[in-house]
Amino acid sequence: MGERIPVDEHARFVRSLLSGLGARPTEPVPVAAALDRITASPVESPIDLPPFRNSQMDGFAVRAADIADVPVELPIAGEVAAGPGVPQPLAPGTAVRIMTGAPLPDGADAVVPVEDTETGAPGNDTVHVGGAAGAVRILRPRRAGEYVREAGSDLEAGADVLPAGLRLAPRHLAAAAASGLTELLVRERVRVAVVSTGSELVPPGAELRPGEIPDANGVALAAAVRSTGAVVVHEARVRDDVDRLRAELDAARDAGAELVLTSGGISKGAYEVVRELIEPLGGWVGSVAMQPGGPQATAAYRGMPVIGFPGNPVSAQLSFELFVAPTLRAIAGLPQARTAQLELAAPLVSVGGRRQFLRGRRAGDGRVEVVGGPGSHLVAALAASDVLIVVPEAVETLDAGAVVDTVEL
Amino acid sequence: MGERIPVDEHARFVRSLLSGLGARPTEPVPVAAALDRITASPVESPIDLPPFRNSQMDGFAVRAADIADVPVELPIAGEVAAGPGVPQPLAPGTAVRIMTGAPLPDGADAVVPVEDTETGAPGNDTVHVGGAAGAVRILRPRRAGEYVREAGSDLEAGADVLPAGLRLAPRHLAAAAASGLTELLVRERVRVAVVSTGSELVPPGAELRPGEIPDANGVALAAAVRSTGAVVVHEARVRDDVDRLRAELDAARDAGAELVLTSGGISKGAYEVVRELIEPLGGWVGSVAMQPGGPQATAAYRGMPVIGFPGNPVSAQLSFELFVAPTLRAIAGLPQARTAQLELAAPLVSVGGRRQFLRGRRAGDGRVEVVGGPGSHLVAALAASDVLIVVPEAVETLDAGAVVDTVEL
Repeated sequence: MGERIPVDEHARFVRSLLSGLGARPTEPVPVAAALDRITASPVESPIDLPPFRNSQMDGFAVRAADIADVPVELPIAGEVAAGPGVPQPLAPGTAVRIMTGAPLPDGADAVVPVEDTETGAPGNDTVHVGGAAGAVRILRPRRAGEYVREAGSDLEAGADVLPAGLRLAPRHLAAAAASGLTELLVRERVRVAVVSTGSELVPPGAELRPGEIPDANGVALAAAVRSTGAVVVHEARVRDDVDRLRAELDAARDAGAELVLTSGGISKGAYEVVRELIEPLGGWVGSVAMQPGGPQATAAYRGMPVIGFPGNPVSAQLSFELFVAPTLRAIAGLPQARTAQLELAAPLVSVGGRRQFLRGRRAGDGRVEVVGGPGSHLVAALAASDVLIVVPEAVETLDAGAVVDTVEL
Repeated sequence: MGERIPVDEHARFVRSLLSGLGARPTEPVPVAAALDRITASPVESPIDLPPFRNSQMDGFAVRAADIADVPVELPIAGEVAAGPGVPQPLAPGTAVRIMTGAPLPDGADAVVPVEDTETGAPGNDTVHVGGAAGAVRILRPRRAGEYVREAGSDLEAGADVLPAGLRLAPRHLAAAAASGLTELLVRERVRVAVVSTGSELVPPGAELRPGEIPDANGVALAAAVRSTGAVVVHEARVRDDVDRLRAELDAARDAGAELVLTSGGISKGAYEVVRELIEPLGGWVGSVAMQPGGPQATAAYRGMPVIGFPGNPVSAQLSFELFVAPTLRAIAGLPQARTAQLELAAPLVSVGGRRQFLRGRRAGDGRVEVVGGPGSHLVAALAASDVLIVVPEAVETLDAGAVVDTVEL
């Protein structure tokens, strides 16, 4: 039955099999659809930010020299609202009412906030651009440049507004939109196929005949793939029939899959369909020193890495988390699963020579307790867990209060 | 110009305006599409998990009493593979080859793993269910129940497989699928409309005439809404025209919006379209003691809460994060923004009487440095930041090395 491969060695091997996925093709996507995608290259702004010199406040655009001695009264030569249009130049010795974001008239070099001014009845003496409308009394001097936003003061045209390799959050999309960009060049998501094998499997919800169970692995692995930023391009469930499995791998390839995840069909029974298909192609089917998830398989099929997980749903989900998720998360710019050291709420026993991954739950006191047993079929117990408790290969018993490594689910 | 409302008071007020969103309607969604949704009620499994008594190993199903004294040789009475069908009962004094997950024959009460047995050439003596095929030598005794998974041993039919209020991760979908469920009842996502106002705004990518800028707030707020687990049902951009704004709020209502976020049109200028619309309806437009984001507004329009943010993109994004995001995240079961106390890399000055939210970036040494200035138009600087630095109202200067509160972006 062969040696058991150490967990870390298998993890390294799978990582190397998946290393080709790291060189992502790129694709343009609309800015509004680019949330959580990764920039493929630095993004230049084609325009100055802000694009033109504008007012930072509602108030009056003036020449700073005209308001050096306050209070001073200036005739209001007109008004500039935010909006399209080029304002009239500011004549010396006058003021123009100006709104936040509106372009500064030529000749103006400062803005006096409305709070530092007095006019007649506020709002009644305003007209749109052009046309005199009373006078304004300026109560406080301002230096040239005050409350003026210069064109390009946030970013100059041609400078990078976003770096390469950035996972796009709303604030990054805002900066791209402000730069007038409609598309961003991002890395393509990894395209994954998920194939469940086993003659006992039926679609969830189908009437169960004796000996049949709903396929949980298809749903679980597809969701896990999406959770790690990749995309599922093909999903299938096949009975224990090598030709059917081969047809699904071909369909996955046709759908553009770059990686195939299978579940089932790799242990030591008589009907091991993944084993039967991949061993003649040079694939590896063997045993890893872990529980659950001992049986594991790897192959290449028509250029696609195929990672074969055991059929037990806890084994399949855990194997994905250990061997595939780290690579997919790294490609998607997602944080890796968090780890913590927690105290055990109760003693436990483990199997020597294998790394045990027990399902656990944080108790109210911050300690961790085991949920369910070690059985790799305990899918409800896994759902009730929030951490994995990692028990090293050399450890067979642990006392209550012992500190264990945990991985957040 | 009115009093400045304290930040925390405005936050409480907006939270109370949004409290009606917490009572979510529910909707059924396919299990495979339920990732990251929130269960509306506890989910019962209609079936036992596992659904039938089955083998935990590839090996031989036996009566434990027949293998009490080992080694012992038993005739192989047949084979049970995983898959549909009811196996023949096990005759006393015989063994049946059995695969992992296959139903245990009536009469069998233990499974001996293949590793603890010897047969002839492995694999050559196997036939499908029924039909004798040689003998097996059992090398190790097993008690009744060993390597047998009892029906319902993970979860009994009628028990809750998932609790209410759970944010669905892949392992939860796996348990639902294993229970044969095809749909889950989840909370509806909050339906939000995003309306940018300002005659200066054009769609990102449009040719800019003088005085025009691309609308960044629409993209930013829509993405921020999605990031907090809600859904955008209506997006619009209107010039400073009350009738146009009213028409968009009506359209938002028709699209099922439960919440409207506006940007712009609430400061002290002459063309403040949100102010003009909502003040006659009893809405509030005022000033909050913060920078950026001082001007804020709230209203109800045809039963929808309307939260009005300033038009400057940094103000709008920050206002969303402070006042709306916490409620949406709580409804979606998402973690709140992380906070940390970090040391300042350089001294800074702030404005007394307002809570200042400076954009910051963690330096290599773990300290935090300010990015860009305090200007609320610095959208590229915000994009280059990874934290907000919070400077309390009473603080006007801070030395390098001072410890500040930060909020992760």
